[in-house]
Amino acid sequence: MLVVMEGSATKEQIEAVVKSIEDMGLRAHPMPGAQRTAIGITGNKQMVKDAMLSAQPGVLEIIHVTQPFKLVSREFHPEDSHIKVGDVVFGGAFVPVMAGPCSVESEDQCMVVAERVKAAGASMFRGGAFKPRTSPYDFQGLGEDGLKILKKVREKYDLPIVTEAVDPETLTLIESYADMIQIGARNMQNYSLLRRAGKSSLPVLLKRGMSATLTELLMAAEYILAEGNPNVVLCERGIRSFADHTRNTLDLSAIPYVHRTSHLPIVSDPSHGTGRRDKVDALSRASVAVGADGLIIEVHNEPEKALSDGAQSLIPDQFDNLMNTVKSIAGVINRRM
Amino acid sequence: MLVVMEGSATKEQIEAVVKSIEDMGLRAHPMPGAQRTAIGITGNKQMVKDAMLSAQPGVLEIIHVTQPFKLVSREFHPEDSHIKVGDVVFGGAFVPVMAGPCSVESEDQCMVVAERVKAAGASMFRGGAFKPRTSPYDFQGLGEDGLKILKKVREKYDLPIVTEAVDPETLTLIESYADMIQIGARNMQNYSLLRRAGKSSLPVLLKRGMSATLTELLMAAEYILAEGNPNVVLCERGIRSFADHTRNTLDLSAIPYVHRTSHLPIVSDPSHGTGRRDKVDALSRASVAVGADGLIIEVHNEPEKALSDGAQSLIPDQFDNLMNTVKSIAGVINRRM
Amino acid sequence: MLVVMEGSATKEQIEAVVKSIEDMGLRAHPMPGAQRTAIGITGNKQMVKDAMLSAQPGVLEIIHVTQPFKLVSREFHPEDSHIKVGDVVFGGAFVPVMAGPCSVESEDQCMVVAERVKAAGASMFRGGAFKPRTSPYDFQGLGEDGLKILKKVREKYDLPIVTEAVDPETLTLIESYADMIQIGARNMQNYSLLRRAGKSSLPVLLKRGMSATLTELLMAAEYILAEGNPNVVLCERGIRSFADHTRNTLDLSAIPYVHRTSHLPIVSDPSHGTGRRDKVDALSRASVAVGADGLIIEVHNEPEKALSDGAQSLIPDQFDNLMNTVKSIAGVINRRM
Amino acid sequence: MLVVMEGSATKEQIEAVVKSIEDMGLRAHPMPGAQRTAIGITGNKQMVKDAMLSAQPGVLEIIHVTQPFKLVSREFHPEDSHIKVGDVVFGGAFVPVMAGPCSVESEDQCMVVAERVKAAGASMFRGGAFKPRTSPYDFQGLGEDGLKILKKVREKYDLPIVTEAVDPETLTLIESYADMIQIGARNMQNYSLLRRAGKSSLPVLLKRGMSATLTELLMAAEYILAEGNPNVVLCERGIRSFADHTRNTLDLSAIPYVHRTSHLPIVSDPSHGTGRRDKVDALSRASVAVGADGLIIEVHNEPEKALSDGAQSLIPDQFDNLMNTVKSIAGVINRRM
Repeated sequence: MLVVMEGSATKEQIEAVVKSIEDMGLRAHPMPGAQRTAIGITGNKQMVKDAMLSAQPGVLEIIHVTQPFKLVSREFHPEDSHIKVGDVVFGGAFVPVMAGPCSVESEDQCMVVAERVKAAGASMFRGGAFKPRTSPYDFQGLGEDGLKILKKVREKYDLPIVTEAVDPETLTLIESYADMIQIGARNMQNYSLLRRAGKSSLPVLLKRGMSATLTELLMAAEYILAEGNPNVVLCERGIRSFADHTRNTLDLSAIPYVHRTSHLPIVSDPSHGTGRRDKVDALSRASVAVGADGLIIEVHNEPEKALSDGAQSLIPDQFDNLMNTVKSIAGVINRRM
Repeated sequence: MLVVMEGSATKEQIEAVVKSIEDMGLRAHPMPGAQRTAIGITGNKQMVKDAMLSAQPGVLEIIHVTQPFKLVSREFHPEDSHIKVGDVVFGGAFVPVMAGPCSVESEDQCMVVAERVKAAGASMFRGGAFKPRTSPYDFQGLGEDGLKILKKVREKYDLPIVTEAVDPETLTLIESYADMIQIGARNMQNYSLLRRAGKSSLPVLLKRGMSATLTELLMAAEYILAEGNPNVVLCERGIRSFADHTRNTLDLSAIPYVHRTSHLPIVSDPSHGTGRRDKVDALSRASVAVGADGLIIEVHNEPEKALSDGAQSLIPDQFDNLMNTVKSIAGVINRRM
Repeated sequence: MLVVMEGSATKEQIEAVVKSIEDMGLRAHPMPGAQRTAIGITGNKQMVKDAMLSAQPGVLEIIHVTQPFKLVSREFHPEDSHIKVGDVVFGGAFVPVMAGPCSVESEDQCMVVAERVKAAGASMFRGGAFKPRTSPYDFQGLGEDGLKILKKVREKYDLPIVTEAVDPETLTLIESYADMIQIGARNMQNYSLLRRAGKSSLPVLLKRGMSATLTELLMAAEYILAEGNPNVVLCERGIRSFADHTRNTLDLSAIPYVHRTSHLPIVSDPSHGTGRRDKVDALSRASVAVGADGLIIEVHNEPEKALSDGAQSLIPDQFDNLMNTVKSIAGVINRRM
Repeated sequence: MLVVMEGSATKEQIEAVVKSIEDMGLRAHPMPGAQRTAIGITGNKQMVKDAMLSAQPGVLEIIHVTQPFKLVSREFHPEDSHIKVGDVVFGGAFVPVMAGPCSVESEDQCMVVAERVKAAGASMFRGGAFKPRTSPYDFQGLGEDGLKILKKVREKYDLPIVTEAVDPETLTLIESYADMIQIGARNMQNYSLLRRAGKSSLPVLLKRGMSATLTELLMAAEYILAEGNPNVVLCERGIRSFADHTRNTLDLSAIPYVHRTSHLPIVSDPSHGTGRRDKVDALSRASVAVGADGLIIEVHNEPEKALSDGAQSLIPDQFDNLMNTVKSIAGVINRRM
């Protein structure tokens, strides 16, 4: 951590800041420069209260050097974490694919889709029973009935289930029916929900918020780990930018950054990341090539009748083709699908 | 609503889309153009399922013309809504100021700050008892003890209290102690919390999410109104952009846009909107000048000891000066403070 | 400047970086921390080549502390600069308004508008003769004929003229006809044009690029000052963000930031900043209230016939009202219009 | 094109808009809806002046349906364009790689790098002789001396040369020495430079501006084609977003969008797109996998001594590895490198 003093800061102001630092039990390293003095701080960063320093006279700005996260950081845990969901493992050489409809709409729909995605090589089934929708007038999901359908899919096709929790109550319900809890982009900083997920014995799929920095994403995961649940898989699903040719801007540079900074696996969601069927194929290839630890893809047997996100859902034939291509790409970088 | 067909769409594809529209009980208005055909849709827009159309062959894109919100729209309710919090009214000629510390830290702190902001002309007291923090290791608020302190402030200084709910449980607690429920930026799309707020008898201060469009902000308010609570005050608090000279980019154009589009009042939060004390004064003046229906300002008696957001808190003397200036600006545009 | 080493950096790697710094004639201040070592650098920052350091083994990142600009910085020149354009002065207590049509379309149009804006209190006349347009098929301006019309406006109404240069050739032409050279947002980093403007004897109005940080804006001004022309007025005109309710997001926090960081005046352009007539009035009030050193406003006598940007142009009656209001707001903060 | 009337628009206002449209020689298609009337417009869109309509009473907004570009659009030219630079072809099954240092620094440097990148399979050599730099105090390039070095590289290694023009003068010089003219991100909307490039006989590499939409990128290319030069290769090089873990956010969804919308090839620049060596490899794989028509990569023999952008330059050994991997990925999608 570094406190940068204003060019006009007096000797007394600099000394006062040094004293404040030492009063916190830390070491101060003043560095007088040509234009300004900077003061380095070493010691236990947990003990630093920024505001105590930034509000002092003569202080221009505070620069953080150390990352604020711990349990999720690679420095704390140098080996890759392997996160298990049933027999599926995220974070190893194998790259699992989660596929299924945006919303669970009926048992028929789910069975038809599950059969096809299983055959094509998907490892898990996805589908929303509780849907966070921008409008209160849009379809909000089948609720527990949807969870029951998902459970039948698991039993029939032996596909572990991932589905979204939108609050502590739905999370508790999901624990009785599913294998992995999804926390969506809109809830990435819903700390009550994160803490509740941290007390679950199920693994968590945590999606990046629409305007979250990667530090914020990792801090959200830190909430879950800090409560005792180490099984978190991160998910890049596109960020909000000025660009208007896609629904979101899929930020694939997040993948190598997270790999370098954290031991947690990170998957890619090209369906939400682009919002249009005709880009899902290309961005799935790119996601595997960049090193994503998994894909989550929307597949619908009749997208023109979907109750949500039909425009970005693939039909099963398109999903077959996609799987063929990404398997070959995975092979090029010594991974398997 | 408008369906734009691809330039290469066949006559059969166009007719199929027209038929789908009519099958939904709506009217289709095909408009053959030089390059493409567009098909206008009129009738009850609630009945249109986008996905049914966007997934049909030959369809290039769907363009929405009608806004998706209803109860919050000015077309539905042409008069300005006046939202009462105790004796304070938002949405009329008077421009209320909510002031107080970011976090409730102690009774002493709150009493000192309350006395000063009341004297300077604040209409309400703000302070967080439940704090949503990026890091699980940061101060998370005093909880119910903080609410008890806020209640004492109200009793002693006759200032209605606004404080943040972070989940349905804390919202229920707040109903016993406070006068207005704040829903913060991170929870703007926490629909469980919005629905719970819609069932409260207290008015709600709803902050814009960090990357929320104004349509999304208004749709979030629609959730509250749709549950039966018409008392919502919106709040612009800065958006996330590439700009790095402030913590957020205060988007003051939101104020005239909301006034034109909705009947709900909208206030401005220049403290979070800028994140630095030295900009709060200037942006408060701008907020009143642009027509904000209120201000929410962080004031701390000792910002260098604040447990959160000290860098953006004003000291009471600075708040006195600010109030003097903004009162004069309000007068210029025929409002009062 | 600070070099942050990786947590796993060896003693040898740290010593190698220290040596590199000393080889550049600078002082290195290593600060061993709990997790990582950081190395502060003091001395003449001009001499530091980032790349030499960032490419060394064990280096995690380089953090810049000192701002990169000089001639434009307030540390270099503590007093406000007063920039004169004829008898008009930017940067003092008086807040000049530049008004006129987006494009010069005809002598009649300009004379009608000039008479009205002069009567309402504008200090300068604006109008484009060379128009940078997104499409090659849009109206590109009258060229030198437009400049001749502007010169007549100046002679008849005694209003100094500001008009945009799009390349060195048009800049040379403008020097023969106008009083101030505008460099537009799209050309803010057109360094050939900036250098040419730096050799001109006319003052320059430099607009912020659509995605330029304020450091980049100030560095662009630095190019002009470095060539010998100290007369630069900066202009905030809205940035590109995800927000879709305005054409651009007017970033009014830029005004207090620039005032603190630089001695150059900065004006606001609410016409381009919002792109809609119905927001220009409100954002002009906010611009004056926040402390802008001037306004630049589009006024057209018949906006429905404008060849460019009609949707954001005020009619003269609207401009009259705007001027009345902003004059009163200027008075509140001890400025005059 | 669609004119949306306000809900409160009168019959007279609607008729007036219809008449305006017909007066322009176009057809109006009024569609009365439940809440509002919309008016479709068909005919020659070139003739529509938005402002004439948007400024009329009762008009809420104008929605554009037809894309504004022509010569660059796939509707105009359905086949992929093949752009030749010497014997290298962009836009076919072969995916060329342009590699070399950010700046030309010396003949030795260029020869060493050229030998290595040629051996690894690069098709063209890149290197800047005229450098657009944020600071006037940074290295600005060797100028014509740099071009002479590039010419020697071409002669010795038979690698066509691409180098950046920053104004019409440098473009003219480059025509005597190089094989392809690069127009950089900062100059994407420098229309004087685009027009000059449109009169050149050399092909042009046009980079996307930092905050340019794809429509704006294609319109910039339209300027070049409209002047008579059909040989344009587009380049995605990262956009500016709030994300702070990379220098820019590489927007790979641009590649499939451009392929669908235009016949021009588009390459990817993962060096500028990420700004860090450790992400170049991963994002190069993703770029080829997504379908980019080429790569442009910075390679430096001694990046720690580079005069610009050292942090994002690969060393030759890293480039060798990268080429091996991307060749295999290209094979998966039936392309060659």
